[in-house]
Amino acid sequence: MSGNTYGKLFTVTTAGESHGPALVAIVDGCPPGLEISLEDLQRDLDRRKPGTSRHTTQRQEADEVEILAGVFEGRTTGCAIGLLIRNTDQKSKDYSAIKDLFRPAHADYTYHHKYGERDYRGGGRSSARETAMRVAAGAIAKKYLATQGIVIRGYMSQLGPIEIPFKTWDSVEDNAFFSPDPDKVPELEAYMDQLRRDQDSVGAKITVVAEGVMPGLGEPIFDRLDAELAHALMSINAVKGVEIGAGFASVAQRGTEHRDEMTPEGFLSNNAGGILGGISSGQPIVAHLALKPTSSITTPGRSIDVHGNAADVITKGRHDPCVGIRATPIAEAMMAIVLMDHLLRHRGQNADVQVSTPVLGQL
Amino acid sequence: MSGNTYGKLFTVTTAGESHGPALVAIVDGCPPGLEISLEDLQRDLDRRKPGTSRHTTQRQEADEVEILAGVFEGRTTGCAIGLLIRNTDQKSKDYSAIKDLFRPAHADYTYHHKYGERDYRGGGRSSARETAMRVAAGAIAKKYLATQGIVIRGYMSQLGPIEIPFKTWDSVEDNAFFSPDPDKVPELEAYMDQLRRDQDSVGAKITVVAEGVMPGLGEPIFDRLDAELAHALMSINAVKGVEIGAGFASVAQRGTEHRDEMTPEGFLSNNAGGILGGISSGQPIVAHLALKPTSSITTPGRSIDVHGNAADVITKGRHDPCVGIRATPIAEAMMAIVLMDHLLRHRGQNADVQVSTPVLGQL
Amino acid sequence: MSGNTYGKLFTVTTAGESHGPALVAIVDGCPPGLEISLEDLQRDLDRRKPGTSRHTTQRQEADEVEILAGVFEGRTTGCAIGLLIRNTDQKSKDYSAIKDLFRPAHADYTYHHKYGERDYRGGGRSSARETAMRVAAGAIAKKYLATQGIVIRGYMSQLGPIEIPFKTWDSVEDNAFFSPDPDKVPELEAYMDQLRRDQDSVGAKITVVAEGVMPGLGEPIFDRLDAELAHALMSINAVKGVEIGAGFASVAQRGTEHRDEMTPEGFLSNNAGGILGGISSGQPIVAHLALKPTSSITTPGRSIDVHGNAADVITKGRHDPCVGIRATPIAEAMMAIVLMDHLLRHRGQNADVQVSTPVLGQL
Amino acid sequence: MSGNTYGKLFTVTTAGESHGPALVAIVDGCPPGLEISLEDLQRDLDRRKPGTSRHTTQRQEADEVEILAGVFEGRTTGCAIGLLIRNTDQKSKDYSAIKDLFRPAHADYTYHHKYGERDYRGGGRSSARETAMRVAAGAIAKKYLATQGIVIRGYMSQLGPIEIPFKTWDSVEDNAFFSPDPDKVPELEAYMDQLRRDQDSVGAKITVVAEGVMPGLGEPIFDRLDAELAHALMSINAVKGVEIGAGFASVAQRGTEHRDEMTPEGFLSNNAGGILGGISSGQPIVAHLALKPTSSITTPGRSIDVHGNAADVITKGRHDPCVGIRATPIAEAMMAIVLMDHLLRHRGQNADVQVSTPVLGQL
Repeated sequence: MSGNTYGKLFTVTTAGESHGPALVAIVDGCPPGLEISLEDLQRDLDRRKPGTSRHTTQRQEADEVEILAGVFEGRTTGCAIGLLIRNTDQKSKDYSAIKDLFRPAHADYTYHHKYGERDYRGGGRSSARETAMRVAAGAIAKKYLATQGIVIRGYMSQLGPIEIPFKTWDSVEDNAFFSPDPDKVPELEAYMDQLRRDQDSVGAKITVVAEGVMPGLGEPIFDRLDAELAHALMSINAVKGVEIGAGFASVAQRGTEHRDEMTPEGFLSNNAGGILGGISSGQPIVAHLALKPTSSITTPGRSIDVHGNAADVITKGRHDPCVGIRATPIAEAMMAIVLMDHLLRHRGQNADVQVSTPVLGQL
Repeated sequence: MSGNTYGKLFTVTTAGESHGPALVAIVDGCPPGLEISLEDLQRDLDRRKPGTSRHTTQRQEADEVEILAGVFEGRTTGCAIGLLIRNTDQKSKDYSAIKDLFRPAHADYTYHHKYGERDYRGGGRSSARETAMRVAAGAIAKKYLATQGIVIRGYMSQLGPIEIPFKTWDSVEDNAFFSPDPDKVPELEAYMDQLRRDQDSVGAKITVVAEGVMPGLGEPIFDRLDAELAHALMSINAVKGVEIGAGFASVAQRGTEHRDEMTPEGFLSNNAGGILGGISSGQPIVAHLALKPTSSITTPGRSIDVHGNAADVITKGRHDPCVGIRATPIAEAMMAIVLMDHLLRHRGQNADVQVSTPVLGQL
Repeated sequence: MSGNTYGKLFTVTTAGESHGPALVAIVDGCPPGLEISLEDLQRDLDRRKPGTSRHTTQRQEADEVEILAGVFEGRTTGCAIGLLIRNTDQKSKDYSAIKDLFRPAHADYTYHHKYGERDYRGGGRSSARETAMRVAAGAIAKKYLATQGIVIRGYMSQLGPIEIPFKTWDSVEDNAFFSPDPDKVPELEAYMDQLRRDQDSVGAKITVVAEGVMPGLGEPIFDRLDAELAHALMSINAVKGVEIGAGFASVAQRGTEHRDEMTPEGFLSNNAGGILGGISSGQPIVAHLALKPTSSITTPGRSIDVHGNAADVITKGRHDPCVGIRATPIAEAMMAIVLMDHLLRHRGQNADVQVSTPVLGQL
Repeated sequence: MSGNTYGKLFTVTTAGESHGPALVAIVDGCPPGLEISLEDLQRDLDRRKPGTSRHTTQRQEADEVEILAGVFEGRTTGCAIGLLIRNTDQKSKDYSAIKDLFRPAHADYTYHHKYGERDYRGGGRSSARETAMRVAAGAIAKKYLATQGIVIRGYMSQLGPIEIPFKTWDSVEDNAFFSPDPDKVPELEAYMDQLRRDQDSVGAKITVVAEGVMPGLGEPIFDRLDAELAHALMSINAVKGVEIGAGFASVAQRGTEHRDEMTPEGFLSNNAGGILGGISSGQPIVAHLALKPTSSITTPGRSIDVHGNAADVITKGRHDPCVGIRATPIAEAMMAIVLMDHLLRHRGQNADVQVSTPVLGQL
């Protein structure tokens, strides 16, 4: 199956390069009758959009999406949905100088070896520009999931060395970093300003949470919900690690500490991150992802060219000093796509199931 | 597609419960002409097998595999390979007491809500017993990959609070823990002995490495090699986190530190874990996985029954106090299956590609 | 995806050669709670079984199926179902003489070129023996579909030059040919007896009908229900053509003649064969398939050997002079698998849909 | 997997309605380095285009395709290819009168029951308009296959009652019917002129042939090459039957007659249609498809409305009186997509295979 498709019943297929004419997506399997408007898609696209603060790339992309198919009179028809975003602010001349060079930590070297050919302008297909379409497709999934009582939200939980403990959802949309603690924002801004002066970049950690998910989603043994989330989140540019619930902290935990005990009133903890045996438990689903520092920095680095000769590389162009800053809407989108797909898969097989056991909440 | 199938071109489909008659697998897409013997499969099955030391479950399973199809006169035919392992040491009566109870941190509660029905004996399909078939299928992949110069090996890098820095591959097969440091083994043994006395369990961290992988494997944007590895490794029972290369350490790294510079003599570091832009770079592929502590412990825990009533649960039966101890061969198997699938997918599309750029090693 | 898997949500994966140790199947996605017994599977296996009349191969295979997984206390659990049929009457020595020969109209030549390797005993994987597992898997689908009011039945509609117009379902199970006209049976028997004396074989036409199918199954544009039926039925050994409804007769029809007019009382005809725009209409689904004459005949034929030299080939062994005779249960099974898969896919996406328009019957 | 995607390694995903803003496609898995130009796509699009003779619909669509992604400096990059065709001549007001009516033999009734919602303008997604994208995607496949020596061509073999025996490929592109016999063209024109006067429509039979296909393509047992061709061709609008080689004529054939004998000089006949055991034999691959008469005719027909009430329906708008006339390029495209996908799948698994047995031609 296409490496540019995600999902089995609710599927998202995309194409498009950083500096090509457009990004395009086909979203299939969406239930019919869902009210969907351009605004629904644009809202999340605007959250991901570059150039909205001094802490992200200054490339100006309107990221205006057009719906080409699958929506009629404001509602999904159940047929494949076509989406289009034109690229408008490509400055391809920025890139000609590095046409034959492999930028360190970029995909230049690996795309070259894989395909022989390569659209070197802005990283071509390997650019995070493609994530705009994930966000647009994810917005459709979010809209449907909301009708089922499922809400997906994310925030930045660490920027470089600065940990950001969760304080309140209210803060997240009010600052450029998706910080859940408004008091941390000045520290984050100061850090980023210094980073730009250092001509360097830094990593980040994002947390995504789905609330209101019914028990039962996930398809063992290989398409466990956690496995699919790991797949979807790790497929985002620059992600180097994914955790569910306690994640790597589980390594040092004891069984008596890790296990989430249950009472008739609810679960007593959520080390599982809402997933047991690869199936949602009804608790909030919690995932963390690690994003590496941006590879495009102006500090020169050692590399080679296509002939194998040594070369110093400086990446010019307009780049995000921390790709994690714009990653929150992308992570939400991927989680939404996974949950949507699994909701449909689950009810395809198990529509007849009725159990009288109550669904536990979390204390 | 079936949640019990992994892979697109090289596919592994399995069935089988902990206490049912047998485990079965169908492995499809294997290149023809590969010499394969029962010993090839048995070697890895024996490495995963329970009951080989006092630190694992005392369930006695021979795990003898039978090849039902797809191999003729000692060589693969290119047709689907059928594998069978009979269960021989099921003690199902151990489980009748918890038939209507949900053990904390197990899949009991979620399977019940998903399917209504549930084979409660030993966890049924959710038991790690199914991983025997992953190991058998992975052994076929390993055998083929070896003919292409690819070697996959794993080791335990942390047991509970005890970190185990990599010292030598030579030690790994010589102790019950897959420890790469022979000097750490007494400490590990003492820790496990105390743990059993405490009637508790603990987590672990496993590292898997693939060497000799050619540049070019991985199918952006969704089937990036790292995304597929995350999927495959997270699908293993008890795994709560997956890292590629520097993983979560990337969060606090700066770009100048994280990026792996290249010289004509080779890469200068491997923070990327051998994958750039979702495609193998030719460097060793390095993945870490976090396994939670075993949920089956004899220390009583609070829970509920199928009617929603409070109940105390003690998990009897025979269990591993640290599932991570036997996880190394499973992690190797899953990495092998992913690389095998991507090797075939890559050459399916890109068989014509020829580049003159040399492949870099690692310094 | 594996070429040995059919279906997307309800999937059937099989392995097994004609003269290997066993046939095996994994059936995934079956709704939980379905009562299933060995008898349910055996009934259809016995209908397909060789050696039950003088008109089929005299190979004696009990075709006894064992359920290895996915069924607990007589009911499906929703987990993958494992099935096993041991081969018991392989006479492999019959085949050694043609080890290096390509039998005309067999798959010998093409398997050799595709895989290099080949299990030449009885055709290996290309033998119709594998269809036993299709029948076993199809029996599970039939059982579930019956709970939804869907009944699938087939019959022989032509044997060589003898057309067999449909008369009654009551006759079909009462003769060796699945003839729906009991009065035709003596003519069919006489034809077959002469054919054996001629050391020749002949083709046949089978018709399969599904009644009680709700409107809505089928996934345009590529997974239209008719397209999937064509795929599934053409995948049966020896099938050379598939028609839906009027089929090739549509070529000479006019629009005023072909179109099935509707009245509030029902459809006035069924040229569409129950499928409009690739979606079931609620009318009976009708498919016809053409099976070529058996290739294994004792009349010598010109061919070549693996070195490209000319050779005369006589196919000994025990063969069906008309593979179509045993094809009816196989065709039913494949139709059942397709409908089952599409029932689950449909409700996965469209579970919310409610329309007040009445469902039409057929007048 | 999406019902709007075809293929496993070479995949085509499409969206778009008859009267929506545009048609869109994403073609993935194309080998990199293939020279591809707009002209390559436009040539086949123009062959399918409406309004080029008086025998097809008078809707005027330029069918100008734009390449949005996956092609750089005139060559494929190996990344997903995005294609766009704007609809320009939608006359949606033609359709408002039948908004609540189900046209007989159309998909109106079944889409309504499946999705609840429906874009009723020109049939929405069920319109043959979507086949434009199949043709564009197929042109890419054809271009690559040509580099491997594979040529795919089709022709009309029957129009209503008029059979058109194959005479010469030279004639096919020189008349509006894709007739391989120039002498038949006046008869075909006269028939069509009378048909229009009768306000009626008629069916047709199309034959597609692939020459130069290497032995080995096809993935038994379910993804046999013939099964996939049947799937792909039956998925074309209005197709009601598919045959490979001798097709339904095989029913009355004897084994001695049907089997294609082999000599060192080549095959002596091609009843198999180039496929044995589901795998290409190296002979020409021959498929026939039956297309039903156009359902959109101005002769009134009995039907019902969405409330279940009786209604007479006249389909106005601009329609093809024989959809088969424009079907030849579509059938070629679907065959090309199937062969392309199977070429990649085959070499993915079997790249190592080397056999010394010569490949036979056809005498």
